[in-house]
Amino acid sequence: MTSATTPTGKERFAAEPAMRYARREHEFRPSPVRAVFELALDPRFVSLAGGNPDTALLPHEEIAEISARLLRDRGAEILQYGSGAGIAALPEVIGALMAAQGAQVSPRELLITTGSQMGIDLATKLLCDPGDVVVAEGPTYVGAMGVFGAYETELRQIPVDDDGLVPQALEEALDAAQREGRRVGYLYTIPHHQNPSGTTLSQPRREQVVEICARRGVPIVEDDPYAFVGFPGTEPLASLYSLNPAGVVHLGSFSKIFSPGMRVGWMAAPPQVRDRLQIAGESVDIHPSVLAQEIVAAYVGTPSWSEHLGRLRQAYAERCQGLLDSLAQHVPDGVRWTVPSGGFFTWVTLEGVDPGADILGAAIERELIVVPGRACFAGEPPGACLRLAYSGSSPQALQEGARRLAQVIDDLRQAHPA
Amino acid sequence: MTSATTPTGKERFAAEPAMRYARREHEFRPSPVRAVFELALDPRFVSLAGGNPDTALLPHEEIAEISARLLRDRGAEILQYGSGAGIAALPEVIGALMAAQGAQVSPRELLITTGSQMGIDLATKLLCDPGDVVVAEGPTYVGAMGVFGAYETELRQIPVDDDGLVPQALEEALDAAQREGRRVGYLYTIPHHQNPSGTTLSQPRREQVVEICARRGVPIVEDDPYAFVGFPGTEPLASLYSLNPAGVVHLGSFSKIFSPGMRVGWMAAPPQVRDRLQIAGESVDIHPSVLAQEIVAAYVGTPSWSEHLGRLRQAYAERCQGLLDSLAQHVPDGVRWTVPSGGFFTWVTLEGVDPGADILGAAIERELIVVPGRACFAGEPPGACLRLAYSGSSPQALQEGARRLAQVIDDLRQAHPA
Repeated sequence: MTSATTPTGKERFAAEPAMRYARREHEFRPSPVRAVFELALDPRFVSLAGGNPDTALLPHEEIAEISARLLRDRGAEILQYGSGAGIAALPEVIGALMAAQGAQVSPRELLITTGSQMGIDLATKLLCDPGDVVVAEGPTYVGAMGVFGAYETELRQIPVDDDGLVPQALEEALDAAQREGRRVGYLYTIPHHQNPSGTTLSQPRREQVVEICARRGVPIVEDDPYAFVGFPGTEPLASLYSLNPAGVVHLGSFSKIFSPGMRVGWMAAPPQVRDRLQIAGESVDIHPSVLAQEIVAAYVGTPSWSEHLGRLRQAYAERCQGLLDSLAQHVPDGVRWTVPSGGFFTWVTLEGVDPGADILGAAIERELIVVPGRACFAGEPPGACLRLAYSGSSPQALQEGARRLAQVIDDLRQAHPA
Repeated sequence: MTSATTPTGKERFAAEPAMRYARREHEFRPSPVRAVFELALDPRFVSLAGGNPDTALLPHEEIAEISARLLRDRGAEILQYGSGAGIAALPEVIGALMAAQGAQVSPRELLITTGSQMGIDLATKLLCDPGDVVVAEGPTYVGAMGVFGAYETELRQIPVDDDGLVPQALEEALDAAQREGRRVGYLYTIPHHQNPSGTTLSQPRREQVVEICARRGVPIVEDDPYAFVGFPGTEPLASLYSLNPAGVVHLGSFSKIFSPGMRVGWMAAPPQVRDRLQIAGESVDIHPSVLAQEIVAAYVGTPSWSEHLGRLRQAYAERCQGLLDSLAQHVPDGVRWTVPSGGFFTWVTLEGVDPGADILGAAIERELIVVPGRACFAGEPPGACLRLAYSGSSPQALQEGARRLAQVIDDLRQAHPA
């Protein structure tokens, strides 16, 4: 070894390492949500950025007992490699959840994942070549945009209104791609309480969207983690998967109805598609944590879990109302927000502010953290906008957040008028 | 909705679904190891196929108590989203392990993964474009081959002998790629107790391999899960990362020294490379299970874990010796095997058998499961060969497996002579 190839101490990484990156590296983007997730730990800040479920409401003692019992009674099995298809007990739990959205699924359609993020990754790996178009809501989930970029696809976004994505705009986007000779990999949609707009795709539109895509042979990736966190009095709508299972890959998750720290979700897809997804997944992570899967299977679906879900839905409804009331009280005229029927988010649109303004930067000046709307669009956003999350915050934080947002809007209108 | 787009009941999936797959789907290959993993559950069979650690030797009660304590005391935090960088307690545990292989690493170099499989995936995503060459040992780990295929790279394999991969052959492979104008994405190597050959890269060769790659600017992906399961009396050798951290991505795992069911591993890389790997990883799975990470951090490195590791190493040494003794007793002349100094595997080469023969099929006829050597090569294997794992089997199973293998070899020599 020469010293040139074995630098030591502080000099080890003095220069940019001589590793050439793949072309796709240019498309890697750090999630702005994850970036502010770190900053949000500063106690001076009010964060309405992270879309966190409230895990303080969970029965920790009960989950501790479940975990201990599993490890005591079946430790050798639970600590060993598991099946790439997931543990045997989960299909029944998942089947009950999917049946509540109108889909009768067999275990042959199900694949366990380390959460919906991996489901988006695997679906894109299977369905998209570089240069393909992915169509999605505008705004859309920033974590999905990271996947679209990593697979070198082109995101084209279509508007949403109070009933979710606009079918006419979908049809036009698919027409345009066809005219240009561009292949559409899939339609990506979050049909319940969409992240980040907070809107839900209405039942008539679900049928329209499925029909439009089925007619053109465009698969749908239905990312549906918020189906069961509608506010009290609401019920989940029929899943797109229930309307046309042969044309839809459905993504489900235990992150919002139990625990995101566990990292357990699922995919439902036609058996041949599911089998290919399993092969793709085994080369990525072999399988999700067996202990986490077993805890999920032992807890979700029990009466205690149903009570917990009821508490969550009630809490989110109250927090949402608290935030919307505070917005009405504090923010100036010319600010609009969506009125969610469930989920974690409301979407705020600002008149009188330059769409190119740095909203997050202005918020940080006032010790507030939000997700800037720009992060949810591949191109320029249609206006100045931002996402607020109410799911994980106290009433005081929501009120103080709305108060600071009002200041931020004043600042923006002064410094960056439209 | 027309009935044509909403088939129901048994007809839902009657035809091949109308989803067009990405080009890379042709490269998706089911792991032959995972396929036999399912068959191995049949009690009539003896399986020497799966590379499983012995999780029955773990102190299940102690791990149950750790898990329960974590969930009781810090449930809201542990069940919540975690940081993409991993939990705060792991870098110290990992730092101590890597220091035992000569590398002083800072937390800035470390990224927590859901096991080394994800490490291979992320390194390939960052370093390889479609059409790039990946150089690896021949034979190599079948799970890595799945990744190479998914990223549409071309695997070129170089021979191993008792001291691991042959540096002269590495140099020739890199020369050949250069002459052809082909870019080499990286050298993939498993330097300790290699899966599947059971050989270890000697210390002088480690320095040669690092020098050859550094001189040509070819990164090394060092997949090192077996470093700490050498047989009693052996010590881990210096990692390739310790020899040239600027040119190596090191993959470590808790799967072989604690639990594969947990799905926790790590990557060490130059900070700039590590940051790009983190961004790539967040779009795949956000982060590994927080509970699993916390259990690993609370157990690995304790005196109880050290005792456990000592028991494992002793057990594997005894099982290896038992298998090699049984092979010597039962198999006919013209059969050779490697003599491991640790790890899970021995590699068996058969004279007098057609290299194209279906070894797994012949073994199944005798109710034996092995990994056929063909699965570990991108092209034709240099001869008839197979992998035997001794890590997870009883002395009786190892002896019976050797006896059945002798019959299989006789069958093969009759039906498929070389």
